[in-house]
Order: sequence, then structure tokens, then C-alpha cells
Amino acid sequence: MATILVLHGPNLNLLGEREPEIYGSTTLSDINQTLQQQARDKGHHLLYVQSNAEYELVERVQDARHEGVNFILINPAAFTHTSVALRDALAAVEIPFIEVHLSNVHAREEFRKHSYFSDLAQGVICGLGPQGYELGLQAAIKYIEQS
Amino acid sequence: MATILVLHGPNLNLLGEREPEIYGSTTLSDINQTLQQQARDKGHHLLYVQSNAEYELVERVQDARHEGVNFILINPAAFTHTSVALRDALAAVEIPFIEVHLSNVHAREEFRKHSYFSDLAQGVICGLGPQGYELGLQAAIKYIEQS
Amino acid sequence: MATILVLHGPNLNLLGEREPEIYGSTTLSDINQTLQQQARDKGHHLLYVQSNAEYELVERVQDARHEGVNFILINPAAFTHTSVALRDALAAVEIPFIEVHLSNVHAREEFRKHSYFSDLAQGVICGLGPQGYELGLQAAIKYIEQS
Amino acid sequence: MATILVLHGPNLNLLGEREPEIYGSTTLSDINQTLQQQARDKGHHLLYVQSNAEYELVERVQDARHEGVNFILINPAAFTHTSVALRDALAAVEIPFIEVHLSNVHAREEFRKHSYFSDLAQGVICGLGPQGYELGLQAAIKYIEQS
Amino acid sequence: MATILVLHGPNLNLLGEREPEIYGSTTLSDINQTLQQQARDKGHHLLYVQSNAEYELVERVQDARHEGVNFILINPAAFTHTSVALRDALAAVEIPFIEVHLSNVHAREEFRKHSYFSDLAQGVICGLGPQGYELGLQAAIKYIEQS
Amino acid sequence: MATILVLHGPNLNLLGEREPEIYGSTTLSDINQTLQQQARDKGHHLLYVQSNAEYELVERVQDARHEGVNFILINPAAFTHTSVALRDALAAVEIPFIEVHLSNVHAREEFRKHSYFSDLAQGVICGLGPQGYELGLQAAIKYIEQS
Amino acid sequence: MATILVLHGPNLNLLGEREPEIYGSTTLSDINQTLQQQARDKGHHLLYVQSNAEYELVERVQDARHEGVNFILINPAAFTHTSVALRDALAAVEIPFIEVHLSNVHAREEFRKHSYFSDLAQGVICGLGPQGYELGLQAAIKYIEQS
Amino acid sequence: MATILVLHGPNLNLLGEREPEIYGSTTLSDINQTLQQQARDKGHHLLYVQSNAEYELVERVQDARHEGVNFILINPAAFTHTSVALRDALAAVEIPFIEVHLSNVHAREEFRKHSYFSDLAQGVICGLGPQGYELGLQAAIKYIEQS
Amino acid sequence: MATILVLHGPNLNLLGEREPEIYGSTTLSDINQTLQQQARDKGHHLLYVQSNAEYELVERVQDARHEGVNFILINPAAFTHTSVALRDALAAVEIPFIEVHLSNVHAREEFRKHSYFSDLAQGVICGLGPQGYELGLQAAIKYIEQS
Amino acid sequence: MATILVLHGPNLNLLGEREPEIYGSTTLSDINQTLQQQARDKGHHLLYVQSNAEYELVERVQDARHEGVNFILINPAAFTHTSVALRDALAAVEIPFIEVHLSNVHAREEFRKHSYFSDLAQGVICGLGPQGYELGLQAAIKYIEQS
Amino acid sequence: MATILVLHGPNLNLLGEREPEIYGSTTLSDINQTLQQQARDKGHHLLYVQSNAEYELVERVQDARHEGVNFILINPAAFTHTSVALRDALAAVEIPFIEVHLSNVHAREEFRKHSYFSDLAQGVICGLGPQGYELGLQAAIKYIEQS
Amino acid sequence: MATILVLHGPNLNLLGEREPEIYGSTTLSDINQTLQQQARDKGHHLLYVQSNAEYELVERVQDARHEGVNFILINPAAFTHTSVALRDALAAVEIPFIEVHLSNVHAREEFRKHSYFSDLAQGVICGLGPQGYELGLQAAIKYIEQS
Repeated sequence: MATILVLHGPNLNLLGEREPEIYGSTTLSDINQTLQQQARDKGHHLLYVQSNAEYELVERVQDARHEGVNFILINPAAFTHTSVALRDALAAVEIPFIEVHLSNVHAREEFRKHSYFSDLAQGVICGLGPQGYELGLQAAIKYIEQS
Repeated sequence: MATILVLHGPNLNLLGEREPEIYGSTTLSDINQTLQQQARDKGHHLLYVQSNAEYELVERVQDARHEGVNFILINPAAFTHTSVALRDALAAVEIPFIEVHLSNVHAREEFRKHSYFSDLAQGVICGLGPQGYELGLQAAIKYIEQS
Repeated sequence: MATILVLHGPNLNLLGEREPEIYGSTTLSDINQTLQQQARDKGHHLLYVQSNAEYELVERVQDARHEGVNFILINPAAFTHTSVALRDALAAVEIPFIEVHLSNVHAREEFRKHSYFSDLAQGVICGLGPQGYELGLQAAIKYIEQS
Repeated sequence: MATILVLHGPNLNLLGEREPEIYGSTTLSDINQTLQQQARDKGHHLLYVQSNAEYELVERVQDARHEGVNFILINPAAFTHTSVALRDALAAVEIPFIEVHLSNVHAREEFRKHSYFSDLAQGVICGLGPQGYELGLQAAIKYIEQS
Repeated sequence: MATILVLHGPNLNLLGEREPEIYGSTTLSDINQTLQQQARDKGHHLLYVQSNAEYELVERVQDARHEGVNFILINPAAFTHTSVALRDALAAVEIPFIEVHLSNVHAREEFRKHSYFSDLAQGVICGLGPQGYELGLQAAIKYIEQS
Repeated sequence: MATILVLHGPNLNLLGEREPEIYGSTTLSDINQTLQQQARDKGHHLLYVQSNAEYELVERVQDARHEGVNFILINPAAFTHTSVALRDALAAVEIPFIEVHLSNVHAREEFRKHSYFSDLAQGVICGLGPQGYELGLQAAIKYIEQS
Repeated sequence: MATILVLHGPNLNLLGEREPEIYGSTTLSDINQTLQQQARDKGHHLLYVQSNAEYELVERVQDARHEGVNFILINPAAFTHTSVALRDALAAVEIPFIEVHLSNVHAREEFRKHSYFSDLAQGVICGLGPQGYELGLQAAIKYIEQS
Repeated sequence: MATILVLHGPNLNLLGEREPEIYGSTTLSDINQTLQQQARDKGHHLLYVQSNAEYELVERVQDARHEGVNFILINPAAFTHTSVALRDALAAVEIPFIEVHLSNVHAREEFRKHSYFSDLAQGVICGLGPQGYELGLQAAIKYIEQS
Repeated sequence: MATILVLHGPNLNLLGEREPEIYGSTTLSDINQTLQQQARDKGHHLLYVQSNAEYELVERVQDARHEGVNFILINPAAFTHTSVALRDALAAVEIPFIEVHLSNVHAREEFRKHSYFSDLAQGVICGLGPQGYELGLQAAIKYIEQS
Repeated sequence: MATILVLHGPNLNLLGEREPEIYGSTTLSDINQTLQQQARDKGHHLLYVQSNAEYELVERVQDARHEGVNFILINPAAFTHTSVALRDALAAVEIPFIEVHLSNVHAREEFRKHSYFSDLAQGVICGLGPQGYELGLQAAIKYIEQS
Repeated sequence: MATILVLHGPNLNLLGEREPEIYGSTTLSDINQTLQQQARDKGHHLLYVQSNAEYELVERVQDARHEGVNFILINPAAFTHTSVALRDALAAVEIPFIEVHLSNVHAREEFRKHSYFSDLAQGVICGLGPQGYELGLQAAIKYIEQS
Repeated sequence: MATILVLHGPNLNLLGEREPEIYGSTTLSDINQTLQQQARDKGHHLLYVQSNAEYELVERVQDARHEGVNFILINPAAFTHTSVALRDALAAVEIPFIEVHLSNVHAREEFRKHSYFSDLAQGVICGLGPQGYELGLQAAIKYIEQS
């Protein structure tokens, strides 16, 4: 049984609460429960955190070393483009991770094309909405089981 | 029942044949069969093509209009960075598509960071090896079923 | 009666406390009181917050949705050039805002010429010192009254 | 009693005449009269000029030295991005000025982000429509009264 | 019967007068007469102006609104690369236009590759000498007749 | 009697077949017939080829030397931005050519602003739809008759 | 007797705890004690803080004014490349500082070559490991004693 | 006897009139008289023009062809960096010219480092104040006498 | 006895056929025969292919694995600057290769300075005409004999 | 006992001789003697050289191999930004080195931000005046003693 | 009586010796004698040096302090674009200087547009051949006499 | 009988002396002797020089004019990327030359991709070790014999 940590970056707490006719009615809580169930079905343990504070995410990654986290699924949201601190934390703990984005960052503002995480990640999934997390979790589980 | 077209770009025919101890022994044929089965299980039809010739891929995309293709899964490989013709074909037929890369393009040469496809794609999956196709197919099927 | 939120970014708490012979003796508290009075005179309600923490400003913007805030006046200070998270929060809540800078950012370091907020703002006022806030508030009130 | 010169750059003569349902029915003449009244109420004298010719604006700035102009309010319009001559004239006469733009230049074409005036200006106001001039005039009057 | 305005930018008055053995002996007057005849043959009215002054061209475009001009054929010459004011005038009057260049701007100095007009134009013709105007006029007439 | 070769690049075979309400019902075949007639009326011979394969266009240009082709009219489509091979072929055979684009490439994606052909071409016509070919053919014929 | 503040940026709390065979067994606590002793030997007072939160470092710098801090030794770690807020705080309090990096930032990723602090610092020391702090402290003490 | 035309660009009419303690009391009129005398002493004829209007300088250059002007001495001032029209006029009349700048443009704003004239000029003199014109005239006379 | 594959890119089939007074009368066939003889004299086997089609070259490289090719001599011609697919094929088969160019690419258009092959090649020879192939073959043979 | 070589680049011979009220009265000789004493106190041997000639520094580095130099302390001065030859010499002899700058290169001209040495150095110290050498020597000695 | 030093950079010793029909027959010796006479006529003393070695020019500038040199006339030739050491020497001795170039550097290779000297120089003269030195000397003498 | 000059740039004197197990045991002397023999066998005369001083190489090139040197083979080593003086010397003497590099500069640091020599050279050979010189000499001899 492995432990998988799901990290949600800033503003993702707003998900599904605002304008459901546009963004869908899936909340972050829904996503977390779906992922929880998916992990449990495979016999794994899932932890999840959302924070708007960079330092909380940094420290959550640091703590992952002591919690026996085997894999991280991270949607750094806005921090994708600005947080070297979070990058450094992930590099330091040397826990493999997958980067997930709900929207297709390549179809948005120019500055969203650069990520401080992608070159360190096992892989990147973007543009597939909440399903992106589920696919990322599948890949994480496969990675863990093959290691 | 939907029809899904899987397109493999140049040099992907070499997959699994060379240095299995490094790249694994999964061949392109293995991938296609896995995807075929996965589609069939969900009641859909799968077509697949690999070509080293840009024009063959362009024309395969053009023909997709007449074959009732509902979704395209494409790994443009080297053409990711060089083929405006393939981009234009995909834009012209207006069939939704997902871009898949076996390796993590963000961790390789600088020129691999630019894709002529990503901004038009529904989503992009990279770095997850052959599983990336399977995840892409899941997303495609979900997309089709929700449309 | 409308509610207007004034957000002051990092280091603005130092205003007026240091070297009054150079920067003037106007403190942030003075500015807030002046704005408070100006809003009250027009029959509107004013909220103000200063924070050196990006997440506090992000969450204050998120909460503005529930507080019926009609307009935001924001001086992002250093976050102008670095906070995609704050930009995303403002974009998410869809509350119109004006960006204010005390100094003329165009006459300072090269990196101060780029703002993550200006293209989303109703307007931008810079270089006019504390009066910039008052002018911004006038514009905010006019905007509200005309909507 | 101070003298304030308001300079309107190219194409601003079209203001309010075309498509009033879109741009509003405020003409340049309306703006000038409003500013005139605003200045008179504060006991100051206002001059205004609109020109589509760069040289006329350059020479108007040069002449301002002999007319005892204390402050200039300028909307350089298209010349914002192209006129070094107008910049040089303002630098030469050393009369303080504020730069005003009706629209939010940061939300338009890339080339509108560069101004030959902003680094020399007391301040910059953009995106607030005709009210931008009124706010600029207030700042000008405060500047004059405090000098 | 439509009205078509032909605008010639700076230095085009020199055409054909200098070094006829090199540039040909076609003068601007010859071009205008040819176009005049071509328009008349199709039952349309043609106006033409050459100016070395940016403001005259700007104002001629502004006036076109009151003269019922249906289409503009413009060779901005040197202003192609420098006049935002002329661009703004064309955008403001919303009269469709075609951009014509006598020489092939792509085969000359690097700075001639950027035009402030092309992205707003119906189309662009370059490198075809005086015939470029005639082809542009044909396209203008077809455009008018199909509207 | 001269021979003129018309080359159509990738995806142009789709012209007119898809969404006629948007792109018009003019097919590539219609364009070719119109050009054929136009050439015949002037006593010239017209050849035309469309290909999605770069090498076919390259070889068609190479063969033009042996066919006595006097002028080439080329719409390189996507190859405009990517094919040095086609550029080299045109440079090698030293047959004068005009570059035609149906759409206004200057009003589209940034990467469409660069052409590997324009600096070698006699001239460039873009944004004028199918009529662009007809105008290009007129210019070609005039060029031939004056040589 | 002077007061010297030592600031450690994000992830430096991990120092020495992880992989001692690679990074050495020197912890941040070891470094702080060494520096403490070194300062005490010279008759000075040393304060030290590590934080993963930008705002805590910003506020610690702000507070330094009231604590009579004479010099700051700062290793901004990841914030070196992203924190304008911390730069602004240091500029505002006008306390001289030296920037220290454990690793040689010039031999790592391209983005680590830019620092928001170096141009304001008295000096910069990088690549010398924990000893870099000791050398920085020596320079700080000499600076204080010579002022 | 040759004819030499001296062209002074925008704002040069202010020379010597403002702040003589800083810029010296040499007016443009003084410069012109000095040059006039210098030319007369060598048996040549001198014409001079100052204009703030680009079109006047352009047309003065055009007219130079009919006036038998043998050489042009030009200080384009602000137009140095913005006027392609003036560049084109000089290129068209093919009269050799020297570019003069009173101040050292290399020691000022970045944008002053680019000139639209230098690559076409016989030579460039900058930073030597009014004497720069005299030196330029000497060079012009030598050039004429040697041709 | 080793096998050496010589690959000639697009348009090289034109070599020597056109304008022999300029480019010399050496045809590609002459070059191939010279190389053939040179290889045979050293006891090695030589294969050669010219193609204008990227995919043919890609597949020829792929097939080289099965043919026991020990070394590749490649003049990618126009594909030097555009073909990631050919680069990828060479990288995949891991056969050492030397890149040859007939002309000095450094003395031509700016875009010819970038090669997708040079950083993977054993070496690069350019500007020495047909002799460049012979020198490359010498180096290839020496490389093979020393391995 | 180790041997340490101190290299001073061009113009450092002027140190302390000129304008002592500004740059201090410390001469290069003073620095060398201080370093000599510091090395001797630790039981090591110190060599020092200053040269304005790149080749002398290059050859001094080459000779260091034969002299048993264990560590190099180098202030390349102007050569920091221009000498690939000195970089190559240091890389070739594979003697560890520290780069020292008297002034803070980050607070000076833009071109001083790039060093051809920093990425190869053990560490870099800048902005700390003559003390920078002493700190560098301490680090060198510690490095030697720990090797 | 003042002392003026004339410095000639690398390859200027070739002047006039090679291809006199192209470059003229004026040798560096001729130039030096002309300048010598010109200085003597004005009662000043002239020194001149040519060197192909950067260090010799650097040291000549350093020595100028002890020789009472009042002004330097320098043609840095190739060192214009590469020598920070020579720039630093000139900045260190604080002797005013004028930069002279025989050819028009703006009409040559792109890299010749950047000079490490121009922003520090009193002025720059280029493109006027040997006469450029004479004009520079006139300016130097005037500068000295007015100081 | 022709004379061929071989120039070796800085640090090439170290060749073969250091770490023969890595770089091979071929010294510069070995290379020179091999080339000497190769030239003699063809009846030509060979001169060779290695220098770490730019001025020595510059002057050696200058002197080549008087020595009847027919061709130069140059490995500028580090000067490849920094010496405009050496480029200018080669351009001045107009002796044809080939540029040789032992290593593949395209596979090393980014700055090694730019050469100040390649665009002037007859050809460039890189990455082929000492054999590169021999191939260059063959090409030189062929060039001489065909001239």
C-alpha cells in the first residue's frame, strides 16, 4: 500500500462553486473524493491539500518525506509560472510527481507556457479538466506498482 | 459507437524494437492492440496509422472527415515542432484531438518545448510512456460520450 | 450603496513612517481614512486591507464575492510583477478593479514595466502619490453609479 | 492663478462623433468644456489644442514656455508610441506633465505597451475614459498648488 | 456607383521623375490616370491624394467618412513602418482597405518587414510595381460589388 | 505563348468542399479552371498541381526547367513557414514567381508572418481570396510579355 | 556592539538532514551556531531566521529597523529569482546586506542567473557552501567596524 | 562653387535660447552664420533650414535635386530614430550627406542608439556640440572638392 | 570491410546539371562514383541515396540498422534547418555520422546557421565543394578503422 | 604545504595609486602582502601575478601545472567578460579556482553581468573590495585542507 | 601647451600600404605627420602609437597619466567591439577622449554597431577617412583650450 | 611550389601533453610534422605557428603578405569567438583560409556556436580531431593547384 499526495495550488478552492453552467459543477471536494475512491480501490492511501499560500505547499512537500509519500500529484495553478521555492522543495525531497492542469495552458496567455515544474516531472497532463487528475492518479499508481 | 483515429508520427515504428532493456519491449503494435481492446471494451471503433511521411498524416487527417472519425489521438513526434501542414489539416477538419508524447518533452532539447499542436488540442499528455496513449484514449472516450 | 475594497500590497505598511522629509508624512492609515471619508460622502462603504502575504490578498479577493464587493482598488506593489495567483483571483471573482501605484513605475527599474494586472484592470493610475488612490476611488464610484 | 495646457493627439477629434452607442456621445469639445469649468472653479486658466500633426503639438509645447504654462495634460494618442520629437519638446521645456489615455493601452496591441512619455511624466492615467482627463486635471491642480 | 480613395504616402511624388532608365517612366500622375480610367470603366468614382505629411493622410482618411468613400487603396510608403496615427485613423473610420507596395518589401531592409497596416487590411499586394495598384483596384471593385 | 505553372500547397485540396457558407463554394478546381481560361484568353498555357507532399512540389519545380515554364504562381500554404527545400528548388531553377495567399497571413498567428519565399519572389499577394490567384496571373502575364 | 540579522530563505531548513553523504552533515542549526559564536567572539549580537514564507522574511526585514539591526546576511534561496517584495523591503529599510548562496548559481539552471538582490547588495558570495556565510559575516563585521 | 544644404530637425530651434548657463549661449542662428561664413570662405554656397515638421524636411530634401545641392549636412534630432520618410527622401535624391548630433547619443537613452540614417551617410559626427557642424562642413567641402 | 551510407538531401540531384560554368560540371553521379572508388580502394562498401522526400531519408536511416551500416555521410541540404524527423532517426539508430555541406553555410542567409544535426554529428565539413564528401569519407574510414 | 596562485587581470596595477580618497589607499602590493602573510600563517605558499596581457595570464595558468599549484584565486577584471582563452586555460589545467571582483559587478553596466568564468569556478565573491581576496583565500585554504 | 595622445588599434599599420588604388595611398605615417603638424601649428605636443596588442594600448593609456596627456584621440579598430580592458583603462585615467573610425561602421557587419567606447567618449567621428582624425584633433584642441 | 601557413590559437600548445589517455598522445608537434610531411609530399612549403597572444597571430597574418603565403589553415581556438582583430587581419591580407576545430563546437557551450571567421573562410572543418588539419591541408592544396 502506497501513499499518494495530491496538491492543489491557489484559487483551486473556487472550483465548481462559481458559474457551474460554465465550469461545471464539479468542486474540488468532488475531485478529492473521486481520487480518494480511485486510490482506495487500488489499495492505496490518498492525502490531499489545497492552499493559496506558497509556503504551505512548500512545507507540505517537505513533510512528505516523513509521511512516506510515494508519489505526488500536483496542480500548481498560478505557482506553475512563479514558484521556484515549490520547485526546489520537490527537487529536494526527490519524490516522483506528475503535473496536472485543468485547462489547456498552451491555449491561454503567453506567460502560461512556461512551467517551473515540467522538466522535473515524470509527466504532464493538461486541458482535460477534472479527469486530468484521475488519469494522473492512474499513472501514479502504475508507476508505484512498477517500481 | 464512435470512431477514434490514432496517429503516430515519424520514427515511432522503431518503438520497442531497439534496446528493449532501455526503452522497454512495448512495440507500436502492442500499443495499438491495447488501445484497440480498450476502445472495443467501451463499444468504440479504433483506427491507427503510423507514418514517417508528413503528407500521409496530413491526408489521413483530411480523410477522417469522410470516415466519420469523432476524435483523434495524435503523437506527432518530430512533426510536433515542424509541421504547420499537419496543424492546418487538424484545424481544417475540426475534429477534436489530444496530443500525446511518450517522453517528457520539457526535459529534453530547448526546441522540443514548442509545439504547433498544443494550442489547438483538447489537451496534452506527455512523459508517461505508452500509458499516455491509454489515458488519452480514456479522455477521448469520455469527451465523445459527453458531447 | 456600494461596497468598495481597497487592497494594499507588500511593504505599503511602511508608508509615511520612514523618512517623512522624503516620502511625506502621509501614512497608510491616513490614506485609508481619507478614502473612507470620500466613500462615505458619496454614500458608499469602504473596506481596506494591507498585507505582505500574497495568500492573504488572494483570499481577501476570493471572499469579496461573498461580501458583495462592487469594485476593488488595488495597489499590488511588488506583487504587480510577480503574482499570477493574485491575477487569477481577480479574474475569477470578476469584480472590476483599478490598479494604483504611488510611484511612476515607468521611471524605475526595467522589471517594473511589466504588470500581471494591467490588462485585466478597468484602468491604471501611477505616479501621483496618495492622491492616486483618491482619483481611483472617484473613478470606481462613477463606474458603480453608471453600471 | 496657474495656466494649464491640455494637448490631444491624432484622431481624438473623432471622439464622440462616431458610433455614440459604442463610444458614448462625449465629444472632445464636451471634454474640453468640462475641464475648462473644472479649472475655472479652482481659479485656474485652461488652454486646449487637438492636432493630427506632430509638429503642431511639438511647437505648442515649445510655445508653452512663453505663455507661462505651469502644467501640461497630454493624451499623445498614436504619438505615444512613435514621437521622440514630442518627448524631446516636453523634456526641453521642463514643464511637468501627466499622460492620459482614454482606453486601457495594456489590454490592446503589444506595441501600445511602450510609451515615449511615461518615464518623463509625473504620472500616467489610462483606461478611465473622459474621466481620466478630469482626474489628471485634479492631480495637476494639486501639484501646482503644492509647488 | 462607389467612391474609392487612393492614398499615396511620402516620396511617391518622386515616382517616374527620377532615373527613368531604372525605375521606369511611369509617374504618379500616370498611375492615377490609369486607375481613374479603370474605375470609370466600371462605373465608379476615384479620388487620389499624395502627401509627404502624415497629418494630411490622417485627415484625408477622417474626411473619407463624410465623402461616402467605400474603399481605400493605400500605399503608406515609409509610413508603413512608423505611423500608428494613420493606422488608428483607418481603424476608426472602418472603411475597408488594401495595402499596396511598389517594391518587394520582403527583399529590402529588415525594418521594412513590419507594417502597422497589414493586420487590419483586407489584403496586401507588394513587389508588382505600378500594376500592383491596378490589381488592388480590381480587388476593391470586386469587394464593393459583392458587399 | 508562355507556360505558367500554378502550385498549390498542402490542404488546399480541401478548398470549397467544407463549410461553403463560410469559405464560399469556390473549389480548387474552380480556381484552376478560371485561371486556365484567363491564361488561354491571353494565348498562354497553364499547368497546375496541388500536393500535400513537400517533395512533390520540390520535384515539380525542378521539372519546370525541362517543361519550359516561364513563370510560377505559388501558394505554398503551410510550407510558406517551414520549407527550405521548396525555397531552394525555386532559387535553383531561377524561374520568376509570385507568392499568393488566400487569407491575410498578417492577421493570423505570429508564426505566419515569416515566409521562406517572399524575399525571393517577384511579388506577394495575400488576403484577397481566390481573386488573389487571378491578380497574380495578370501580373505573371504582364511580366512575361514585358521580358 | 552591533546587531546582525541572518536570513535563510525557503527549503534551507532541509540542510544537512537529507543525504549527508552528498550534502554534508552541516545543518542550518550548525551554521547558525557557528555564526553566533563568530559574532560573539567579535563582540556582536546575531539574530537568525529561516522561513519558507516570503511574507515572514519581508516582515522580519521591516522589523529590523526597530531592532537596531546594523547589517543583514541573506541567502534568499528560491526567492532570489522571484521576490520583488523582499527586494523592496531591503531597499526600504536601507540596511546594508550581503547576499550568500551555498551552491554556485552560475553552474545551474539558466533562471538562477538572475537575482533581484545582487544590484542592491554590498556584495555577493556564492558556491562556497556553509563557509560562504562565515565569510559574509566577516565582511559584515568589517563593514560595521569601518562605518 | 558648390551648394551645401544644412538641415536641422525638431526642437533645434530652441538651441541657446534656454538655460544658456547649461547649454551655452550658441543659438541655431549663430551656428548657421558660422557655417555660412565657413562655406563662403571656401567659395561655396550654403542653405539652411530648421523644421519641426517631418514633411518639410522631406520636401526640402526632394527639392534639393532641383537646386543643385551637392551635399547635405543633417542633424535629424528626434527624427534620427523615427523617420523612415526622411531616410527614403535622402536615399531617393542620392545626394551624399553627413549626419551630425550635438550630444553623444551613445551616452543617452537606449533608443537613441539606433539611427535610420547612419548606414546611408558618408559619415557620422556626434557629441562635439556646435563644432560638430563645422567639422561636418569641412568634411563636406573636402568631399565636394575631391569628387 | 565496413559499409558506409551516403545520404544526399533535397535538390542535390540538380548538381552539375545546371550552369556548369558556375557550379562546375561535377554531377551527383560523379561524386558518388568518386566516393565509391575511394571506399573500394580502402576495402569498404559504399551505398548512396539522394531524395527530395524527408520520409525516404528517414526510412533509409532506419533501414541502415538492418544493413549493417557502420557510418553515415550526410548532406541534409535544406533539411539541415528543418527536419527534426531526420535528426531523430539518426539519434535512434546510433550510427556515427559526419555532416557535409557543399557551400559555406556561414556565408549565406541567417537561417542557414542553425543545423538540427551538428550537435549529434562526429564532425561537420562545409564550404569545400564536392571535395568535402571525399574528406568526410576519409574521416569516416579512419573512424571505422580505429573503432 | 600547498601552493596558491593569485592572478590579477588588466588595470588592477592602478589600484590604490589613483584617487586614494575615493578608492582607498590599498595598493595591489598591499593586497598581495596581506594575502602572502595570510597564506604563510596557514603554512602555505603564495604566488601572485598581475598582467594587462591576456596571453601572460593564459600562460601563467598553463605553467601552474608544472609548479604544483593547488588552487587559483583570480580576479579576471575586464577579461571576465571577454576572454575565452583564459577560460579555456583554466578548464584545461583543471586546477580549482575562485573568482573575485572588487566591485559589485551586478550594480554596474549590463555587460558586466556575464562572466566566462563563473560556471567553472568553485565560487564567486564580488563587491567586498580587497577583503574579497582574503575571504577567497580562506575558502581556498579550507578547500585544500579538506581535499 | 597641451599634450595629445593618438592611439591606433590593430591592423591600422597596414593602412595605405595595400591596394592604394582602393584605399588611397595615405599611410598611417602620413596621418601621424599631418596630425603632428596640425598640433604644432596650434602650439601643442602630439604623441602617437599604433599597436596590434591590446595590452600595449592599455598600458599606453595607463602611462598617459604620468606624461601629462590632456586628451586622447583613439581609433580602437577591432578592439572597439571586444576590449573591455581598454575601456576600463580609459575610464580609470579619466582623460577625455574622442573615438574615430575611418570607415562608416554603421554600414558594415552587424557586430560593428556596438562599441565599448562610445558611451564614455566626448564624441565619435566615423566614416570620414583620414580626415576624421584631423577633425577629431580640432575638437580635441578646442576642448583643451576651453577647459 | 606554394607556401601554406598553419596557425594554432591559444592553449593548443597543451595538446597531447596532458592526460594522453583521454585526449590521445598526439602533440601539436606531431600534428605539425604530419602536415609538414604531407605538404612536402605534394611539393609545397609549410610554415606553422602557435601562439597564446592575439597580437602575434595578427602580425603573423600581416607578415604572410610578404612571405608569399598562398593559403592559411587556422584553428583560432578560443579566439574563434572573441577576436575581431584576427578576423580583420585575415580580411585585409586577402589570403584564402580554412577554419579547423579539433572538437565539435556545436556540441559544446552555446557561445562556441558563433565564429568571427566562418563567414570569411573558404570552408570549415570541425569535430574530426587532428585529422581535421590533414583534411584541411588537402583542401588547401587542391585549392592552390586549381587556382
